[in-house]
Amino acid sequence: MYYLGPKGSFSHEAALKISDAKYIESQSISEIFHRINSEDKLGVVPIENSLEGPVNETLDNLFEYDDIFVNKIIQLKINLVLASKENININKIKNIYTHLYAYKEAQNSLLELGVTNNIIPVESTSKAALLAISDPNSAALCSEFAAKLYGLKILVNEVQDYDSNITKFALISKKVSLTGERSIMLFTVPDLPGSLYKVLEKFYVLSKNLKMIYSRPVRSIPWHYYFYIEYEGTFDKDLLNELKKVTTSLKFKGSYDVT
Amino acid sequence: MYYLGPKGSFSHEAALKISDAKYIESQSISEIFHRINSEDKLGVVPIENSLEGPVNETLDNLFEYDDIFVNKIIQLKINLVLASKENININKIKNIYTHLYAYKEAQNSLLELGVTNNIIPVESTSKAALLAISDPNSAALCSEFAAKLYGLKILVNEVQDYDSNITKFALISKKVSLTGERSIMLFTVPDLPGSLYKVLEKFYVLSKNLKMIYSRPVRSIPWHYYFYIEYEGTFDKDLLNELKKVTTSLKFKGSYDVT
Repeated sequence: MYYLGPKGSFSHEAALKISDAKYIESQSISEIFHRINSEDKLGVVPIENSLEGPVNETLDNLFEYDDIFVNKIIQLKINLVLASKENININKIKNIYTHLYAYKEAQNSLLELGVTNNIIPVESTSKAALLAISDPNSAALCSEFAAKLYGLKILVNEVQDYDSNITKFALISKKVSLTGERSIMLFTVPDLPGSLYKVLEKFYVLSKNLKMIYSRPVRSIPWHYYFYIEYEGTFDKDLLNELKKVTTSLKFKGSYDVT
Repeated sequence: MYYLGPKGSFSHEAALKISDAKYIESQSISEIFHRINSEDKLGVVPIENSLEGPVNETLDNLFEYDDIFVNKIIQLKINLVLASKENININKIKNIYTHLYAYKEAQNSLLELGVTNNIIPVESTSKAALLAISDPNSAALCSEFAAKLYGLKILVNEVQDYDSNITKFALISKKVSLTGERSIMLFTVPDLPGSLYKVLEKFYVLSKNLKMIYSRPVRSIPWHYYFYIEYEGTFDKDLLNELKKVTTSLKFKGSYDVT
């Protein structure tokens, strides 16, 4: 099972919650899709964050690879900790290694703790944990999972500014499931007034509750969009047939449970 | 007029196209909104890119600041160049300074040119241009504008992979204009089936063509969204009154021309 690395990443943590398959670290979301497409394996990728919105690279790859589907969604609360090699006083921390994204999510909390000096941005919070091991006067702002994996001592728990920081991860594969509590569809519509309205009408008439709708640019044509919709309910042949009448392209990307 | 810095940034280039006001460099999009709110000045911020989609920080700030409006949209084609202090052969380039985002946009072109070695990511393409001045064996992958501003020699023009890489910049201020070819509205809807459908119905019935729709998470409540809509046409009191019936909150953010 491929996951977005490095070791100790949130995707790694999500992957461990699914099965005890063999885990293979991958460098990027696009690489995971590429590998699954050619090797017919499983993958775990972030798909949406409650604060930041969709993970565009995942959505765009789902749109690009017609034969890759979502089989499961795993929700993970993002718990950031300040962790260090030794149990030092937080006033003694000289450098804080972290990912800029994590820093942004914990900026106010760090300010309150008075430890905003010398933030050293690195490419991931797991890398931050790794660097903190070899620098005793430093700390990593990273996940609890990464801190434990690298044997760091947790100095401050729950450093994130918002308690509602949750990321959804998708288990993806080349198998499509037609049953589950939710489903994803991707589509494009004609560039005419009322196009999206006519699509949403189909969901409304068939009493399908939309949980999420995003529009994303189609990269080859400026200001043209495809839509990403997640709805409550399973695969529905009637819905699909109705949607085909009002879309220019339509891709069913699987039904799945959310845990 | 505030622009998203540093000097030589795409926002700087967009600002120069608007007026000959005094330009003030700013560190972040949020800082620009903050300053405009307290100082009643003008600002220029990126709002959408044809490949990457909306600039979330701009959308979220428009949602947060009720009294800041969009007065104009300026479109800028993103032309990336490979530029150096001297007119050296591209095979002699040792380091390429650039922003990771720009690198992503030019990855394939660089591969074709055979100069993918030693990419040094920095915080902006203008910074990359600045660094290239003091390192004669290096080049910057930056905008044509930044290259010229810092007096670099352009080795390769149009290095971007997609010719359709266009960014829209918004001129923002505390004044609201009610006339222009397009308008922006932000709204939230009840968490009930058909909510968004009923909003889009109002646009359809009044023959307003939507140009753009995005949903963004409301940061304080997980999995709750606000919607961002751009439509063709000017302020319309009837439309606003109709929309009020089907939304839980509604913000008109201005009518404007697109140049």
